[in-house]
Amino acid sequence: MGKRIVIALGGNALGKNLPEQMAAVKHTARAIVDLIEAGNEVVVAHGNGPQVGMINIAMTTLSREDPTHPMAPMSVCTAMSQGYIGYDLQNSLREELLNRGLHKPVATILTQVEVDPEDPAFENPTKPIGTFMTEAEAEEMRRRGNAVMEDAGRGWRRCVASPLPKSIVEIETIRALLDAGQVVVACGGGGIPVYQTGNNHLKGAGAVIDKDFASELLAESLNADTLIILTAVEKVAVNFGRPDQKWLDRLTPAQARQYAAEGQFAPGSMLPKVEAALKFAESKPGRTALITLLEKAKAGIAGETGTAISL
Amino acid sequence: MGKRIVIALGGNALGKNLPEQMAAVKHTARAIVDLIEAGNEVVVAHGNGPQVGMINIAMTTLSREDPTHPMAPMSVCTAMSQGYIGYDLQNSLREELLNRGLHKPVATILTQVEVDPEDPAFENPTKPIGTFMTEAEAEEMRRRGNAVMEDAGRGWRRCVASPLPKSIVEIETIRALLDAGQVVVACGGGGIPVYQTGNNHLKGAGAVIDKDFASELLAESLNADTLIILTAVEKVAVNFGRPDQKWLDRLTPAQARQYAAEGQFAPGSMLPKVEAALKFAESKPGRTALITLLEKAKAGIAGETGTAISL
Repeated sequence: MGKRIVIALGGNALGKNLPEQMAAVKHTARAIVDLIEAGNEVVVAHGNGPQVGMINIAMTTLSREDPTHPMAPMSVCTAMSQGYIGYDLQNSLREELLNRGLHKPVATILTQVEVDPEDPAFENPTKPIGTFMTEAEAEEMRRRGNAVMEDAGRGWRRCVASPLPKSIVEIETIRALLDAGQVVVACGGGGIPVYQTGNNHLKGAGAVIDKDFASELLAESLNADTLIILTAVEKVAVNFGRPDQKWLDRLTPAQARQYAAEGQFAPGSMLPKVEAALKFAESKPGRTALITLLEKAKAGIAGETGTAISL
Repeated sequence: MGKRIVIALGGNALGKNLPEQMAAVKHTARAIVDLIEAGNEVVVAHGNGPQVGMINIAMTTLSREDPTHPMAPMSVCTAMSQGYIGYDLQNSLREELLNRGLHKPVATILTQVEVDPEDPAFENPTKPIGTFMTEAEAEEMRRRGNAVMEDAGRGWRRCVASPLPKSIVEIETIRALLDAGQVVVACGGGGIPVYQTGNNHLKGAGAVIDKDFASELLAESLNADTLIILTAVEKVAVNFGRPDQKWLDRLTPAQARQYAAEGQFAPGSMLPKVEAALKFAESKPGRTALITLLEKAKAGIAGETGTAISL
């Protein structure tokens, strides 16, 4: 009676550097393996904001010091971040599975996600990447030609375009592994953003795809039952932080869209999660999107907590 | 009548920087797709010497400039290089397949390869990584605590330990995809070197595994018919560069071992290729290892050129 589940992990939940990531993935693996142990098929997608920012800074510094290395595009930095994060994540999942006597192979699939080169997002960068900066540092970065933004009250960050995902290039690989009973890590950082040029050529795009929308597309493409979008709160709230704040247990896509239109959800934070969740919920009857904490994923699947969106 | 083939590509054949890599993979893809078009199952393994060196320098520079980022171990740099190289390689293979009307999914599997922490290689670093240096630059690097070596007459390079591969952690994933008719890129850079600690924990090792030995283990593990080790010459020679130089068409493992013992093959260059080839050839009757140029792989498989080693 297991479900097919796509889990979207936040890049911020993976830690800002190597030691933090190694600690974070252990914790993450326990919650994910709880779902696998309960008989569900699981695909793990994840963000890469801090990680791709770190790699981008490292590669930029290299090209400044050694001009034989041109600047690495965001697509290449994302490919590298999939290796960087996938390695720790697949390893901790494997270890947690084996510790519970579960023999299921775990694999990370380097994933490209196609975007539309005419996506209006390219005109208006909104996706925060890299470490937090002070306002003065952000101003300096802006002077050097980068887009910057204030990120949900947590500080300033560099930002890049965030076009919508259109299709997942390696979907047949992910499906084959899932069908073979394997645990798959895919669409890391929202996938390597590419677009079609010429006949069959895929060109890297200077963008980062939102991991919630990529996870939504992944869940639809795999005909998943459930999309779990993990966040820093147990449930979605309306009137957040106000005296009349109200936690939401259950929503229809229409209700979710209405609250979004009222400006209830913070752009770049809860808003894309709700938008991705309602898109999945309305894509087909019987599909549920769940927004909750990592630690509550198992209880959420059992209907005990989190905010569930379904038709 | 197709064969199951593992191809080992040299990291040096992939270019020293991003634009070189994008050009190199196009050329590489044509030769590999020739083999797929002829009805063979193909798994592509590749080196990462220049690439992991570049990433290692970038990450080291980052940690020097921003102490919140500790030095990235070689295992992490290799994971990143699998993303960096696999992205371009899978993309160019996909494009070349589609251009010929072949609809086969292509995937890169982030691959960990287990080594023995007691491997004597850890006492004696021999694997060149990164860009070539002058002797003076090498001396400076040695003074800063790194091992350096002169690499087959081509210049000086940094070097790290190169332990033998013991097992491929993600082998079941690679096998499942191959069985599903997909083209797989795996064991990039010889695989992310890891070793067992505790019960089920895999720890990254400060090493780079030779891609020819990793490819050999991959070929054995997949019960491949043929291991193709690509190099810069069409055939293996004895008395190389001397008046009595002789190109070799066919060798038994015993003959190859004899020549190796005579010092016919350059360490760090042709020697590991011959050693990996003879190991595969003698692992089971019917298995052939072929050493040749990328452009000659198809002719080599047809028995027209290259040096073939088999029982």
